[in-house]
Order: sequence, then structure tokens, then C-alpha cells
Amino acid sequence: MSTRDVPSAMSRRELLMMIGSVAGSAVSYRAMASLGLTTESKYQGPIRLEGDVKGATVLILGAGIAGMVAALELRKAGYQVQVLEYNNRAGGRNWTLRGGDSYTELGGFTQKCEFDKGLYLNPGPWRIPYHHRGILDYCKRLGVALEPFVQVNYNALVHSSKAFGGAPRRYREVQADFNGHVAELLSKEVAQKKFDKKVTKEDREMLLEALKEWGALDKKGAYVPGRESSERRGYLKPPGGGLSAIPEFSRNIMPMDELLQSRLWAAIGAGHNYEMQTTLFQPVGGMGRIGDAFRREVGNLIRFNAKVTRIQQDAGKVTVNYVDTVKGGATQAATADYCLCTIPLSVLSQIEVNVGAKMQAAISAVPYEASCKVGLQFKRRFWEEDEHIYGGISYTDLPIRLIGYPNTDYHSGGKGVLLGAYVFGPNAYEFTAMSPEERVMKAYEYGKMIHPQYRDSFETGVAVGWHRVPWTLGCAGAWTEEKRAQHYENLCQLDGRILLAGEHASHIPAWQEGAVLSSLDAISRLHKRVISA
Amino acid sequence: MSTRDVPSAMSRRELLMMIGSVAGSAVSYRAMASLGLTTESKYQGPIRLEGDVKGATVLILGAGIAGMVAALELRKAGYQVQVLEYNNRAGGRNWTLRGGDSYTELGGFTQKCEFDKGLYLNPGPWRIPYHHRGILDYCKRLGVALEPFVQVNYNALVHSSKAFGGAPRRYREVQADFNGHVAELLSKEVAQKKFDKKVTKEDREMLLEALKEWGALDKKGAYVPGRESSERRGYLKPPGGGLSAIPEFSRNIMPMDELLQSRLWAAIGAGHNYEMQTTLFQPVGGMGRIGDAFRREVGNLIRFNAKVTRIQQDAGKVTVNYVDTVKGGATQAATADYCLCTIPLSVLSQIEVNVGAKMQAAISAVPYEASCKVGLQFKRRFWEEDEHIYGGISYTDLPIRLIGYPNTDYHSGGKGVLLGAYVFGPNAYEFTAMSPEERVMKAYEYGKMIHPQYRDSFETGVAVGWHRVPWTLGCAGAWTEEKRAQHYENLCQLDGRILLAGEHASHIPAWQEGAVLSSLDAISRLHKRVISA
Repeated sequence: MSTRDVPSAMSRRELLMMIGSVAGSAVSYRAMASLGLTTESKYQGPIRLEGDVKGATVLILGAGIAGMVAALELRKAGYQVQVLEYNNRAGGRNWTLRGGDSYTELGGFTQKCEFDKGLYLNPGPWRIPYHHRGILDYCKRLGVALEPFVQVNYNALVHSSKAFGGAPRRYREVQADFNGHVAELLSKEVAQKKFDKKVTKEDREMLLEALKEWGALDKKGAYVPGRESSERRGYLKPPGGGLSAIPEFSRNIMPMDELLQSRLWAAIGAGHNYEMQTTLFQPVGGMGRIGDAFRREVGNLIRFNAKVTRIQQDAGKVTVNYVDTVKGGATQAATADYCLCTIPLSVLSQIEVNVGAKMQAAISAVPYEASCKVGLQFKRRFWEEDEHIYGGISYTDLPIRLIGYPNTDYHSGGKGVLLGAYVFGPNAYEFTAMSPEERVMKAYEYGKMIHPQYRDSFETGVAVGWHRVPWTLGCAGAWTEEKRAQHYENLCQLDGRILLAGEHASHIPAWQEGAVLSSLDAISRLHKRVISA
Repeated sequence: MSTRDVPSAMSRRELLMMIGSVAGSAVSYRAMASLGLTTESKYQGPIRLEGDVKGATVLILGAGIAGMVAALELRKAGYQVQVLEYNNRAGGRNWTLRGGDSYTELGGFTQKCEFDKGLYLNPGPWRIPYHHRGILDYCKRLGVALEPFVQVNYNALVHSSKAFGGAPRRYREVQADFNGHVAELLSKEVAQKKFDKKVTKEDREMLLEALKEWGALDKKGAYVPGRESSERRGYLKPPGGGLSAIPEFSRNIMPMDELLQSRLWAAIGAGHNYEMQTTLFQPVGGMGRIGDAFRREVGNLIRFNAKVTRIQQDAGKVTVNYVDTVKGGATQAATADYCLCTIPLSVLSQIEVNVGAKMQAAISAVPYEASCKVGLQFKRRFWEEDEHIYGGISYTDLPIRLIGYPNTDYHSGGKGVLLGAYVFGPNAYEFTAMSPEERVMKAYEYGKMIHPQYRDSFETGVAVGWHRVPWTLGCAGAWTEEKRAQHYENLCQLDGRILLAGEHASHIPAWQEGAVLSSLDAISRLHKRVISA
């Protein structure tokens, strides 16, 4: 009911001029024709694979998102489909660890997740951008309920162990102070006559007005303690009610030099990135709900606990050998006319597969990102109760990199699970080398430096270091521009009867959308081959 | 699972240096002691009214948020409480219009809301900031479930009928281009040696790095079409999967002069404002769920359909006259030792009340804001299905000011209700002067200029012009600094046995938090008087 949404740079004069003037609407309406054309997703709605598939059979390796998208769509198109999956569950990196789940990593460590009912960690993907229309459409078609994922929380913390005595700042303070200092600096320059001569006087005045508004500058164009800056960075004492109502303005603006050298400003860009922009989503109940939903659709096509050991094609068919990881026994074989292989390259490069030299080189060319996530359960939601942080992310220069707060069950009281570490880069190798217990302990120790409440509230944790996940041996394909130029097209070609798909066969690495679009692109080409054969 | 959260300005060298160095943690831990002190809410948890109230009675006028907070807390403290309420429901401006609801405004127009089940309009408040701890705490205590309110949606529209041929832009484009141009301009100035001499060489280099990162500048410090700018404003063709994967960069960057003169930049500040920052909330099912929850607690104290006609105090008691708006009949009277009056000043100023001259002057001094909201039901959620706008707000310079998308049931298919207009200022008087049907039609006509899908999807609408709401005669108290200086303290004093509360008796006008804090402040002072009497 507040009027604070009003673009305050709009003058009363303009407002009055607008009254009753609906002129120009026809122009505007016509202009609308161009709307929606500024970006065009690669996803254009449910795929249509039409034509006679002549009873063709397809063997799909891997029941992750790419594999199950293919299974669902190929079966619908009339193919006979079989899926081999290493795990005893569907989803692959689409994965949610819950209380009662058990997970054994490379090296033999087994963790039994002891989270309370309803609490979880997503070791892999944890958010879905609004423009990832492929995965979103499958969520819709398969009935996976979504809720907002809060990326940017103005009340979350930004922490550097080397700045401001190690005391965290609030996101809103860092952003307000950065914007304010930048706006003031540029305003000063613009006000000088020597400023960029390409900028006209009219634009210069408008720029000053915009900078004042955007940077929360005062009447003199300065970023200083006062109402304007407090309305961005928060108050020392916020306005209240009755006789105790008078606000006190925020006074502790970070000096520009300290703010710049602190590098805290690096954290305020995250929400601007195309993949992190609002409105982001997460499935209600954990990312794994997507894998669960796919399994309900295509589970009857999947053979679980099947470890692929060899992929061979000849002129007439593809034969895949596998062993049952639970029952053991002799090597078994499955055959089909075609094979869609979604096994991560990190694993596939260790399996015998007779494809051409170019695809073989591509399979071996791509290293995998290191990453480690740690989930920590606390007996109370202190981040909400004490700090009024509801969802979102705090950033730190400590190896844990960030702390993610649950974007669900806000205000519910009771227990909660934090993403206590999302380690990548060199620190991720270090974390992955530790035992799971050590990772949890490290996340606890580092996190306690940011939230001292860890000490009294911590209960239990789980940790996944992706290079020790037996079925991916890493987090996601780490393409470079050079490797893409050399290998990407070779990786994606139909090689005889074998075709690859997965996030590694996309330009959106590490995202589920890459797996979806890669899979749809692959099966479209496969289908074209089949119906034109 | 993406690594895009990494503060990209952090170098690999720094990363390596960090490995294993947990030194400094004790320092950091101690520094933490200052955490949480940067802002201190006026709300410090549930109020404690201790001591012997000696059987005192309190008559509360108005069962809005302020009145029901007082009723709940005073009863708990031992007072005998009675509440008179004009409407046949509790909540006041905390109000949700649903299908089946009927509402008659000043002038006699009655609207029967015809929304489908589950759909609604909040004519009054529609969001709750994370720092409005008072109202949030009552939500928690009364079991009102909350969900995120999306204020900023990067894929929503920003529209000026006078710029870019009337074609809307995406929020992300406006923000990216504004930030980019500002960063480039300042970078150029910083790179020149004549730049502000107070900035050291070291800070200058860091500033250039920060501007590059924040403004999505290319290697040369320019904001131009390319990967950097596309990663903010979106792609012409986003990256995909397989052989159809190669992205095309965005090319239509808005020239700085056009962007400045368009004033579209005024829309990108909204989410920076303290009251609009993430994480914002809305009650699941509509704002009115708060009023409903209070009613469950204190409903038995409320006499509904009671229109107050006179408030009189003498040395021993307060007597309030009222008439039953449904049953009619003779004027009735209620008495109590004290009276807490939460009636809006716009209405109270027309009721006979014997308070001192100063309070009387204060009651008459405050005009009320004009505002009009229109809810429009559509038979399909085209904003999601066609435009991939999930929640949030589009802004326009048309009189409707904005279009608000539902922040719930995302992706659900079926029908939906948009906030089709949130008119304020002069246009709100114009809208309020129309019949409800005309308001709805205007909102439809203007909105159709932004979303042509209105034409085929519109079903029904409701419209509330706040100056015609019989029990508030306006949206919220419109204080100026001058009026506050002259009247605010006089308004809030205990005048004999009469005390006022509500958003109008706060420094947070138009927000429910103002009503809560005003009420708590008032009853604290009243209680002090009672126990020390």
C-alpha cells in the first residue's frame, strides 16, 4: 500500500500532463508486435518426433535428466527403449539427500544422512532460472511444484576475513555503499565542464538526476549518512510507531577505499547474472523431485544397479556390456539399433567404446570441475530467529565460499539445514581429499566464524565431494574456449550408431537445462536418421 | 551446481594462498560480537505488560491490525477488552477480496467479486519486508504461513509510452544498460590522469576492476554487445545443447542518451529501497489471512457492524456511541476506563470526540493518500506461458503505473489474477471518480497496450478506489515533515483517557508495521499509567 514504487524521478508536472491522455495507445499496441523477440530460447515447447520409427530400438546409458528426457520422448515417438543406470535411483546429479539416505563415495566412505524428516541437501543443482524453459516445461508436464529460490538477500552477509576486522557486512550495505560512491564520483565528474564532450547538456542533467536517484545521493549529490542512504543500507534505528517512533540514520558508511580494497563488492554482482536473475526456482521438497517425477514416467524402462563396462557397435547394432553392482554375477549384454550415451565424460573416457578417433579424442579432452557441498543441520533456525535472514546466500572469502539458507518453510520454527559450504576451485580438491566427517567439521569451523550460533545449534551434517562420486568423478564438464573449438562438434556428432548427450554436450555446462537441450538436440538428429533410413 | 557464484574478481593466486589457512579465525570470531548491531528494530519481541491492571477496562475502536494487536495483548495482560468495528469482518485495510465477496463503496456502487476459487486481490497492503519484525512476529505466533513476494523480476517489463516507440523493455535490459553505461563513463574518467586526486592509484585500479565486473564491461572497459553484456541483458539466442547450441549475443543495447531520456531507469531502483528489499513476504492465500488469524484469537471481543458516532470522556470513564449498520435501531453506548481509538484520521476527524485542542488539531491536520487498485482475472496465465514472467512487477508511465503478477501457484496453468493497476497521485483521484466498472475497463485498456493477450483472456475484475472506502476515506495518512513537526507528538499523547494508534500514528505510514508498532507503543504507555495509578 506504500507509494514507494513510484518512479520518483517522475515529476508532478509530468503526472498531471498524463491525466486522461490515452493518446498514443495504438502506436504502443503496434510496437508490441516486437515484444518477446528480444530473446528466443532454444526450447520451443514439447518436441515432436513424427514419422515411422520402424520398430527401432534405443539403448540409453544413464538415467539422469538427459537420459530420462530421451527415454520419455523416444518411447512416445514409438521407439523401443531401455535404460541402464549405475545407481539404484533415477536422477543422476539431480539428487537430494534426505534423512535415511545412504551414500558411498569412492574410497569407501559411507555416509548415512541423519537429517530430520523434511530437511535435505541438494548436492548437485539447486536452482532453475526462469529462462531454462526446457527443464521448466518438464517440471510443468510432470507435475513438479516449484517455489522461488532466493539468490539475493539484502539482509544476508558479505564477509571477508581480511577486511573490516573480519566482521561481516550486510549485502544491502555493500551494495548501497558501492552504488553510492560510484554515483557520487561520476556526478562530480559530470558536474565539471571538462566531462566527456559527447554527452549533451540535456543528457548530462538527466544523468545527474538518475545518479542521484540510483545512488541515493543527497541534494548536493553526496553519498552521506542521512535519510537517502538509510533508505538503502538500513537505519541505525528504523522508524517506529507512537512516541518511540523517531528513526536514527545509519552512520557507518564504508569509506570507498576500504570498500574497494575489501573486495566485498564482488558479491553484489551475483544476482545480475543471467542465470541468477529473478525469478529463480527450486522444486518444493528438493531438486530430486524432478528425478522422482521422471522415474514415475519411465521407471519401468530403467535397469538400475547396472555398471556399463563396454560399448561396442558394428554395422547392425550396438552392444553394451554391464555388471549388476548389487547382485554381481557374470557380465551381461544389452543390444539395440542405437545407443544414446549420457555417461559423464570423466567416466566414459575410462570405458572401452569403439567410436571414431575424433569423438574418442573429444571424450578424453574435457576435465571435470571440482566441487564440494556440505549440508549442516541445526536444531533451530537461528539465521531467521536471530538475524532475520530468510533464504538467500551469504558470501565469504573463506574456503566454504558461501552459506545458503533454506528457501522454504520460512518462519516455521524448528530445525533447518544450511548449505554450509559450496566449495569450488582448488579448495574443492582439498575438501574432497578429506573424509566426509572432516569436511563437515571444516564447514562447521569456518561457518562458526560467520554465525557463532553454530556452536550451540549444530546437530549433524553430510558432505559430497564430487570428484569422489563414483558415477561422475567430478561436478561438470570444464570446457575452455580452445577445447570447444577443437572438440565440441566432434563430441556431438552421431558416430555410427552412437550419440552422446548430457550437460557436457551443451553450451550450458553444469546446468540441468544443458542436459535437457542436449538430449533433445541429440534425439532429434537420431530420429531424422531413423525415419530417413 | 554452477560456479557462477564465485566472486570473479578473486584471483587464482589468492585462492591458492587461502588454502588451508584458517589463521585469523579467532580475530574474526571476536569481531562477530558487533554483528547484528548495525540495525536495531523497534520491535524487541513479544510485549510484556506486567503488573496489576486492577480490573481496568479498555474500549478499542477498530478491528484492524492496530486494534487487534491491542486487544490481544491487553486481554493477555488482564484487561477487560471490547472492540467496536464498522465492518462485518476483521482486518481493516488488511483485506483480501475473493470470489463471492461483496463490497459497497461510498456513492453506493456494490461490487460482487467473481474471481474463481483461490484467486484474489489485496486492495490494501500486499507485501511484508523482512525487517518489519512486529507484523512478522504476529504472523509467526498466529500461524500465518508466508511465501516470498517477488518485487524485482528481471524478465518483467519496463514501459514508457514515450520511448522506444512505446515498446516495453525487459527489466534486465534496462538495468544492464544503465549499469553498463555508468560503469563505462566512470571508467573512462578514472583512466584519465586528471581524475579526482583524492583517489589513490591503488584504489583507482581496484575501482576499474570493480566497474568492469559490475558494469559487465569488456576487456577494453567498454559496454558493448558481447558475452559480458549478454550475461546480464540476455542473449539474442541463448546457449543450447548439442549441435544447435551456439549462442548469439544480444545486440540491441539502448544508447545512453535514449535510455536517459526514456526515464526507464527510474524503475530499477525499486528493489534497492529498504522496504522493497529481498526477502519480502506475502501470506499464503492473501494478506487477509493475517486479519483472519487475529479474528480467531480475539473475534469474541469484537462487536461488528458498529459505526462509531461519538466519543466522550469525563473524569471517570470514556463513553462511545455507535449504531448497528445492519440492524439499525437506536444509538447504543459502550463505556470503559480507557479508549484506544484506531479509526483513521480521515474518519475520526468527522466524529465528535472531546480531546484537547492540540490532539484535535492533529486529528484534523493529516490528509489521506489517494490510491486505486484493480484486480483482473484472466482465463490463462499468459504472462507465464507466453512471456515467462513469474511473479514480480512490470512498470509503465501509463496511469495504471504497474502490473503485478501473482507470486504464487507458479506454473500451475489455469486462471490467474493480475494486479492490473496500482494508481496513486493525481491519476488515483481520476480513477476513484469513475464507477468500478469504468476503472476495470481503464485498467484493461491500458494493460492491453503492454500485454495484448488481455484481449483474448480477460474475464472479470474488481476495483477499489480508497477515497471511496467508507471506513478509511483514503489509503493512508499523508504526513509531511512540517506536519509531523507540528502535530505528530500531540497526536500520540494520552489525552485524558483516550489514546490513538494506527499507521497514522507512526513513522511508517501505509505499512502494517506502523500499525503494530504504534499500537504496542500506545498500550505500553497506557499500561504504565494504569499500573502506576
